[in-house]
Amino acid sequence: MKSADRLQRFRRQLERIDRRILDWLQRRFHVLEDLTEYKRAANLPIFQPEREQTYRAAIRARLPAEYRDPIDAVFAAIMREARQFEERVLVRGMTRPTEGPSVGEFPFRRVVVVGLGLIGGSIVRALRSYAPRSWIAGVDRDEAARAQARPYLDEVGADGTAWLSDVDLVVLALPVRSIVTWLETYGSHVARGLVLDVGSVKTVICETGWRTVRSPAVFVGGHPMAGAETPGFAASRTDLFVDRPFFLCVPPGMEDAQALRDDLEALLLALGARPLYVTPAAHDRLVTFTSHIYQLVASALAAWVYEMALQEDLDLRQGAGPGMYSMTRLAGSSYELWRDILTMNPQAVEAFSAWVEWLHRQGPPYDWEALFRRARQVYEALYGSRGE
Amino acid sequence: MKSADRLQRFRRQLERIDRRILDWLQRRFHVLEDLTEYKRAANLPIFQPEREQTYRAAIRARLPAEYRDPIDAVFAAIMREARQFEERVLVRGMTRPTEGPSVGEFPFRRVVVVGLGLIGGSIVRALRSYAPRSWIAGVDRDEAARAQARPYLDEVGADGTAWLSDVDLVVLALPVRSIVTWLETYGSHVARGLVLDVGSVKTVICETGWRTVRSPAVFVGGHPMAGAETPGFAASRTDLFVDRPFFLCVPPGMEDAQALRDDLEALLLALGARPLYVTPAAHDRLVTFTSHIYQLVASALAAWVYEMALQEDLDLRQGAGPGMYSMTRLAGSSYELWRDILTMNPQAVEAFSAWVEWLHRQGPPYDWEALFRRARQVYEALYGSRGE
Repeated sequence: MKSADRLQRFRRQLERIDRRILDWLQRRFHVLEDLTEYKRAANLPIFQPEREQTYRAAIRARLPAEYRDPIDAVFAAIMREARQFEERVLVRGMTRPTEGPSVGEFPFRRVVVVGLGLIGGSIVRALRSYAPRSWIAGVDRDEAARAQARPYLDEVGADGTAWLSDVDLVVLALPVRSIVTWLETYGSHVARGLVLDVGSVKTVICETGWRTVRSPAVFVGGHPMAGAETPGFAASRTDLFVDRPFFLCVPPGMEDAQALRDDLEALLLALGARPLYVTPAAHDRLVTFTSHIYQLVASALAAWVYEMALQEDLDLRQGAGPGMYSMTRLAGSSYELWRDILTMNPQAVEAFSAWVEWLHRQGPPYDWEALFRRARQVYEALYGSRGE
Repeated sequence: MKSADRLQRFRRQLERIDRRILDWLQRRFHVLEDLTEYKRAANLPIFQPEREQTYRAAIRARLPAEYRDPIDAVFAAIMREARQFEERVLVRGMTRPTEGPSVGEFPFRRVVVVGLGLIGGSIVRALRSYAPRSWIAGVDRDEAARAQARPYLDEVGADGTAWLSDVDLVVLALPVRSIVTWLETYGSHVARGLVLDVGSVKTVICETGWRTVRSPAVFVGGHPMAGAETPGFAASRTDLFVDRPFFLCVPPGMEDAQALRDDLEALLLALGARPLYVTPAAHDRLVTFTSHIYQLVASALAAWVYEMALQEDLDLRQGAGPGMYSMTRLAGSSYELWRDILTMNPQAVEAFSAWVEWLHRQGPPYDWEALFRRARQVYEALYGSRGE
């Protein structure tokens, strides 16, 4: 047989097989669609990570060794796509839940999320998946954000003040300055339930929240260590917080209040995040060195590189390697957001200045061997040792 | 019907469908295995990205709109796993090619790769896939590296000098200092063909290569802008260079030598990289600002953060956010590698010192608004504008 014919025969075989795979995949998504509709109507949990793991392990065990890894990887993709598909089905079919039936153990039946950007949007998506029948309203001044988030929400509004008299949870997913303003203006309107912010500075915000939100409502300062380059609801994801630390600052005197802890942990379970209880002062000190300083260095470095590239007419993009990409990723951050963070956590700019002073004392010439060796300690703390 | 029964019925349906999908996937990989064996024996190209794209587009067009995205994503996973599977089949079945038949248009029939780490290993894998019947030998002093690379190579050695009298291509994938030493020692032993290095500094290396490698052999300085955190052959990948820039410095006077250009472009086509012709001096200046400075800043910053964390007993890992991860990724780099890079491109440390001086003149207080705005220009050059 000629080589071209042999090749053709193989290809036709593969195409026939692929048609069958596609048929079965279509049936699979069709059944999944029905199952999701049914689960939603019966108020059953949609995502069951443990069940999925057991199922995948059973499948993997049945596969012949020579094809095990590739088929297992394909199956992982099927499961991943199935999860996202279920989320879409859920949202598409969403109707206002009938009043009456309890929402099981999830303590937040009425939720208002203020701010529908990346973080607020991801909270909406995660709560919607975890507790499909909770009533969730979203507030954003921006009409486009409201329109994007609308399918995931029971109600949307530009203001939302009217809802504050009857909610279990208010999430403030706004820029830090706006969180303070919101608390000063509306904090005292929240009749009961939990008020949680997600701003990246905690001292100023907690001071305001604890002063303005009044019992039986409780203010807790929050800060998830999660993000993405692209802002906005469109970039939000159900799994943004999964396995990420989530700082929590409970009011002084309530450190041992078990009911509050239970509520907070139910909420973080829904998001998949790991709770880290801290004081506002300890939080702001820690994030100076685990978050804020990196933004300042990235901006100060990229600003200078920009000047040099202009002066010398260098095409930065042409030679950009992986190191440059990771060290300038933060350089796209909005100044307006950071201006407020820096004002509310002044030790961030102090730390930056202290670092520049320290460098200036060190060299030139710099002891690069000592710097590299100490730097590696940080790498290993974060990434674990991966050898030289 | 009871809710548990309904749920069970859905699950049994899904399990039945999954069994069929698994059956067809097994058949698919079985046919693919035969096809790959056949292609190898007939010396036909294994990877055909264009064919794959057309095929996927045709499949996508046939899918019903409601399941199109998830099934397309599953299919992307099938194609990806198929590529990796083919590579493994290829390597497993590899035998020394019979002498005689030409290797089509690929001009490098006898290749020696010196240094079997991340970069050298990725070159071996890419050439092996692209030109299965080229004879490829690997040289590394480290026995473990040789053992890992052995399945991909026709021959391995700790020295490889004996091969230099009859090769079409020698790739020097060593640390920069070792490249210079190799060229001084063996450069004049290469009887013919192309000698290409992949070091990240070019002035010193090209000066050495152009002096020691003698006609009809030709030395070309190379530098792929690709890498990964984890070093070593185990981390090497066939697609490490795909769509990445690859700097090339051809000897003075040979800028217009068409045969050399053709050979270089055939090689970069095999790697999937984009050629960028530069002079060694222009290369070293550009990478100062697109690569070297970022390593120095990452190390100098992480070293200081390490000191601060020790002083204040901060648990950095606890609060590490995405920004810290991307800004300390480079902090794990080996000092030994960088010591030589910095010696051979002294303008990198000069640029670092100049930046510290510049910062020291700027503040405190720093004009963060101006710094953020200029920094954003670099971000947009690299990532494109993604809105605020």
